[in-house]
Amino acid sequence: MTTEFAFIEALRAIATDPAARGLNDDAAVIEIGGEALVLTMDTMVEAVHFLLDDPPADVAWKLVAVNVSDLSAKGAEPIGCLYSHSLGDDAWDREFLAGLKQAGDHFRIPLLGGDTVRMPRGAPRSFSLTALGRGPKDCAVPSRSGARAGDVLWLSGTIGDAGLGLSILTGRLAPHDPDAASADWLVDRYRRPSPAPGLGVALAPLVTAMMDISDGLLVDARRMAVASGVNLAIAADRVPLSEAARKVSGEHLGARMAAMTAGDDYCLLFTAPAERTAQIEKAAAAMGCEVVVIGDVRKGFGLSLVDNGEPLPLPEKLGYEH
Amino acid sequence: MTTEFAFIEALRAIATDPAARGLNDDAAVIEIGGEALVLTMDTMVEAVHFLLDDPPADVAWKLVAVNVSDLSAKGAEPIGCLYSHSLGDDAWDREFLAGLKQAGDHFRIPLLGGDTVRMPRGAPRSFSLTALGRGPKDCAVPSRSGARAGDVLWLSGTIGDAGLGLSILTGRLAPHDPDAASADWLVDRYRRPSPAPGLGVALAPLVTAMMDISDGLLVDARRMAVASGVNLAIAADRVPLSEAARKVSGEHLGARMAAMTAGDDYCLLFTAPAERTAQIEKAAAAMGCEVVVIGDVRKGFGLSLVDNGEPLPLPEKLGYEH
Repeated sequence: MTTEFAFIEALRAIATDPAARGLNDDAAVIEIGGEALVLTMDTMVEAVHFLLDDPPADVAWKLVAVNVSDLSAKGAEPIGCLYSHSLGDDAWDREFLAGLKQAGDHFRIPLLGGDTVRMPRGAPRSFSLTALGRGPKDCAVPSRSGARAGDVLWLSGTIGDAGLGLSILTGRLAPHDPDAASADWLVDRYRRPSPAPGLGVALAPLVTAMMDISDGLLVDARRMAVASGVNLAIAADRVPLSEAARKVSGEHLGARMAAMTAGDDYCLLFTAPAERTAQIEKAAAAMGCEVVVIGDVRKGFGLSLVDNGEPLPLPEKLGYEH
Repeated sequence: MTTEFAFIEALRAIATDPAARGLNDDAAVIEIGGEALVLTMDTMVEAVHFLLDDPPADVAWKLVAVNVSDLSAKGAEPIGCLYSHSLGDDAWDREFLAGLKQAGDHFRIPLLGGDTVRMPRGAPRSFSLTALGRGPKDCAVPSRSGARAGDVLWLSGTIGDAGLGLSILTGRLAPHDPDAASADWLVDRYRRPSPAPGLGVALAPLVTAMMDISDGLLVDARRMAVASGVNLAIAADRVPLSEAARKVSGEHLGARMAAMTAGDDYCLLFTAPAERTAQIEKAAAAMGCEVVVIGDVRKGFGLSLVDNGEPLPLPEKLGYEH
C-alpha cells in the first residue's frame, strides 16, 4: 500500500501550476474572466469515510457539506457541483439522491453534471464531488500560508462533536450520563456537518490565513503553521466545546484533548491582526455564527499548546494524519 | 441494482440549473466573468472501465483523454483538472502518476487539485477526474441539440478501432491475418485514445451540433438526433475505417456494423450546413485531422441507416446503452 503522504508528495511534482497552490491548500484557485474560481474535490468511500449503516441521505449531505466547507475556507460562494455516483441498490440510491437535493438546496449549490458508474459486485460504494465557488471580489482568496507573528488565532463553532458522534455510533463511547438528546445531536453533527459558506465569505477580507478543520484541530493547525512559517500557540482551556459534548464527556483536559484531535468538524480556523477583533466578531454575529479566540501566532515553527497559561506537551496523535 | 437510465432520470429532476443542460450534453456550461466555463467529470472503475492488466500509465492517460474529449466536443480549450485517486500498491500508483503527467503534458491540462483516498482491502481501484475548459469566445458552446434538417453529418477520425483493440486484448478476436503491427495499433487506440482538443475549438464556430462518440457511433448519433428533434441518416458505406481495422477485420458490412456499435472511439460527431463544407475541411486540415461526411440530417426522428443508398435495418444493439 502506497502511503498517502508519499503519494501526495509525488503528486506535488506534477501539480506545478500556481493554481494548484502546491496541493497545500483546501482548494485550487484559478482566474477566469477576471474572477477567482475556487475548486475543490472530495471523495467518500464506504467503510472508510462513512459507515455501512449511515443513512444514505446523510452520506450525500456530508459529501456536499465537506466540499462546501472547503469553499467557505477560501471565502468562496458556491456556484455549483459535479458528482460521480457508483450505483448500488435502488432504494439506497434514491435516498441518497434525496439527501443530495436537500444539501444542494440548503447550501445553494446546484448540481451541474457528473458521471454515474456501475461497480463490480461487492465493491464498496464510492462518491466523488467537485465543487466550484466564486472567490472574494475585493480581496485575495485566503490561503493557509498568510498567518503572521502577532496575529490572533480564531476558531468558528465548536470542536469534537462529530468525533463524539462517531464514537457513539461505533459503540466506543457509551455516554456516562445517558442524555439521549445530546447523543442524538452529536451523531447528527457527525452525519450532517453544517459549514456556513456565508461566514467564510464575510471573514475573507479580514483574515491573514484561513482553512477548514477536517482532520482534527491540532493536525490542521500544524499544517497552517507549517504553511505560514510560524508557530501557532493554542490555549486548550479556550477551545470551544458544545453543551452536548460537555454533557456527554465533560470538559476536563482529557475531553478537550480528544476534541482537539477528533476529525470531521468542518469549522473554520483563521488568523487576523488583533485590531480586527471587533470587525470579526461583528461579521460572525451578522451570520449567526460563534467565533472565539483560541490562541495566537508567534515567531517560530509548528504548534504549541498551553493550558491555563502552562505549557502542555503535544499528544502523540494530532488527528487524522495523511 | 438501480438501472443507470432510471437513476439518471432521477438526477435530472435535481439538476434543474440551465448550466446542467438537462444532463443531456457532454459537459456543463456556466458563465463566469463573461467567459463560458465548460465542465465535465468522468470516473473509471477497475474491471468495469479498464482491464485489470491494463498498464497503469495507460489507465491514467485514458482518464485524462476521455475528459479532454468531452471538452473538445464543446469547443473548449483545456484549463486544468482535479482528480481523485484510490491508493493501491506503490509500483502501480507510481506508473499511474507517470501516465497522468504524460497525458497532462500532451493535452496541456495542468493538474490543479483533487483528493487521495484509501480503499477497503480488495476494493477495485476507482478514479474520477473533473476537467475544466474555456469555451469558444465568438460563438455559443456547441450542444447536441442544434442539428437542423438539411445539415450535413460529419465524423472526425476513424471508428471501431478501440473496440477491435479491446476484442484483441480479451481474446474475443484473433486477427485472421496475423498482422502484429495492426493489432498493436488497435490495442493502443483502446488504451490511449487521442482526442484533438484543437479540432473541437476550430470546429465550434462552424457546427450546428457537436458531441463526442464514446459509447458507439449509432447510440451516440441517436442521442444527438433525439436532442435535436431530427432524423440522422448515416451511410454505412461512408463510415471511415482505419487501415489497421480493414486489415484485421475487413470492410464488409458486418465489420462496418461492428465498428459503428463499438465504444471508446472518442471521435467528434457534428452537423453543419452544406455551405460550410469547404471551411470545415480547411479547419480540420489545419489541425492535421481527417473529417468525412457520413450522412445527413432530415426531418423526422431518431436514426436511420443506409448502405450504398439502400435502407438498412438498425441493429438490435446500437452501442453501450446506459
